[in-house]
Amino acid sequence: MSRIVSSTTVGIVGGGPAGLMLSHLLHVAGVESVVVESRSRDQIEHTHRAGILERDSVRLLVDSGVSDRVLRDGHEHQGIDLRFNGVSHRIDFQALVGASTWLYPQTDVFADLAAARERDGGDVRYSVTDTAVVDVTSDRPAMLFTDSKSVRHEVRCAVLVGADGSHSTTRASVADRKEYFRQYPFAWFGILCEAPPSAPELIYCRSERGFALVSRRTDAIQRMYFQCSPDESADDWSEDRIWSELQARLAGEDDFALTEGRILARTVLPFRSYTCEPMRHGNLLLAGDAAHTVPPTGAKGLNLALADVRVLAEVVERAVLKHDWSALDTYTGRAVDRVWKAQHFSYWMTTMLHALPGASDFDVHRQLGELAAVVGSEHGKRYLAEAYTGWPRS
Amino acid sequence: MSRIVSSTTVGIVGGGPAGLMLSHLLHVAGVESVVVESRSRDQIEHTHRAGILERDSVRLLVDSGVSDRVLRDGHEHQGIDLRFNGVSHRIDFQALVGASTWLYPQTDVFADLAAARERDGGDVRYSVTDTAVVDVTSDRPAMLFTDSKSVRHEVRCAVLVGADGSHSTTRASVADRKEYFRQYPFAWFGILCEAPPSAPELIYCRSERGFALVSRRTDAIQRMYFQCSPDESADDWSEDRIWSELQARLAGEDDFALTEGRILARTVLPFRSYTCEPMRHGNLLLAGDAAHTVPPTGAKGLNLALADVRVLAEVVERAVLKHDWSALDTYTGRAVDRVWKAQHFSYWMTTMLHALPGASDFDVHRQLGELAAVVGSEHGKRYLAEAYTGWPRS
Repeated sequence: MSRIVSSTTVGIVGGGPAGLMLSHLLHVAGVESVVVESRSRDQIEHTHRAGILERDSVRLLVDSGVSDRVLRDGHEHQGIDLRFNGVSHRIDFQALVGASTWLYPQTDVFADLAAARERDGGDVRYSVTDTAVVDVTSDRPAMLFTDSKSVRHEVRCAVLVGADGSHSTTRASVADRKEYFRQYPFAWFGILCEAPPSAPELIYCRSERGFALVSRRTDAIQRMYFQCSPDESADDWSEDRIWSELQARLAGEDDFALTEGRILARTVLPFRSYTCEPMRHGNLLLAGDAAHTVPPTGAKGLNLALADVRVLAEVVERAVLKHDWSALDTYTGRAVDRVWKAQHFSYWMTTMLHALPGASDFDVHRQLGELAAVVGSEHGKRYLAEAYTGWPRS
Repeated sequence: MSRIVSSTTVGIVGGGPAGLMLSHLLHVAGVESVVVESRSRDQIEHTHRAGILERDSVRLLVDSGVSDRVLRDGHEHQGIDLRFNGVSHRIDFQALVGASTWLYPQTDVFADLAAARERDGGDVRYSVTDTAVVDVTSDRPAMLFTDSKSVRHEVRCAVLVGADGSHSTTRASVADRKEYFRQYPFAWFGILCEAPPSAPELIYCRSERGFALVSRRTDAIQRMYFQCSPDESADDWSEDRIWSELQARLAGEDDFALTEGRILARTVLPFRSYTCEPMRHGNLLLAGDAAHTVPPTGAKGLNLALADVRVLAEVVERAVLKHDWSALDTYTGRAVDRVWKAQHFSYWMTTMLHALPGASDFDVHRQLGELAAVVGSEHGKRYLAEAYTGWPRS
């Protein structure tokens, strides 16, 4: 079968936020790249995902010239509520650590990045199939793929990047990889509903019936989640049952009231903790979900991907512009400390707020003791706020 | 069988630090008490126990007039080291939260309290047998016991206190009690050795082989512990094997060196988490280990007992001096928040620093990620330092 052979400097497998942000940063630095993505642009723009950006994620979008739309259309969140025993406790990020997060859906981050790459003449191929990476330990590795018109391509490059998400195929080429897993015996039941916001910012709620998260999307559309069994079927739940479960978890002794509305979409989201190390093999480097996934509690997934990319852009630039190929050796070391801190934070938020199957009465009271210790201590609140809004750059 | 019937205001079962401190505080406030204890004074003075006092525990001993010997003979510790991956990380309590702890063995605390009670004419009966509490819900409950001369006694009182330790018999009289447990699949192997100190302050060490704690007793005698199986037999270990295990756990990349010496005593200490609620039934109130025990990691046991007693003295004084018997109703509520915070802290320190049987590779790296997150964050270090040196009074 014939193929078109071409070349670029950096071949990027995966056109989600990690891949496109990297391509953008490399472009700004004068490094050419080609991005291939199996989904269509439209498909990605309509896949609802997380929506909380750390301070440095917002800065990266704005300062690198992707877009300042996040500052106009996003909502600055200066804190979250931790709710337990029927009472909400505010974690005031601004007062505690002088930082905020921004509510800005990942689909908007993607749309901004895709538009920026288009605006700047970036080479992004959506809807490709049969993608593979080859010769990753050579000095001329390649991406192979079939484009949307069924033409087979081979793109030779200096550096390959696997940013192809949690179902990554590129990471199989990290021959010496070690993989770390943790399964959780629960999932999130997520809904989109047509209702005014119940609260200005996010509420992370621990109840005897399990975790619930009150989030928002727009002034008219809200996003909510509650802990469920991983084998729950979303279609088995009537609207009434969903609302009565959410109401029961959020019931309390203060004046919080959950506003109901028509449910527009529902889905069960299983999750796990996963890390792959090293994040580099030869001239192939992994970024974002391809290298690690975290439970959604604490909203670290997208932010961790962008933090990877910030480091990755630097080391790739040093390698290809300054011919300092030893820079690639530093990537895993510079990225992985944050990965494990984020893994811990996500695990901590998850286990502190979810009902854990098999928990004894002691475990339940210990969990409540921990929540009381955190919200009762300025230091505890700062420790949480610093992690939630994002650790300093590495 | 004939018995001598007498009366006092407060009957205290248990003459360890909790019972004697309560008796002392009541004496200072002008409230009479009788303390009964099954062990001899000499026995208690020779039972090695924990040796780290929180700031407020030291203040209580000094300010209430027990003794200022802790300030002269104790060692102020302005921090601890957390050691992992072969490197020690200092948690500088003074710099972080402006507080210290004091190394002052529990046997010395007991000796000071016993001497103060003797000095002030306190009524403390050691070496009693067959102790029981009766009529706890009446307004004239009693302690029954046989004294060291085999004379049977009945001491009627207004209030009874169960401060009789982790094997408490008095708590059985808390008819509506709920008990919370957690067992740990490990214990501590503790040694006393004749050697100069290896470090000025405590080292809490996490290694792949399990937890180790380097502590000290005097300039010539040191105390060390390492995680072992709960069914380990202390006698099965040669001195060489003990030292090589400690050396292996503390091995590292910095200049720390563990100084060895003759082993004077060795023991295997199993532990668990335990809380009993409520801490009061009728006119019987529980304090210290009788109401709760914590794992030793973090040194909360004695300090929590003294915190109980501080609250308990206040409520008993209000009850018997101001005839405000509703004060007793407030005891559990005022004491129990600290109990659960301490339970969480002790669990946290234990699980963060011990090798957990069945831990996956992910769990191990997550644990190291947590340690890195704590020592890498001023807020994380402050959160730990605040808990270790003691939360503010409730």
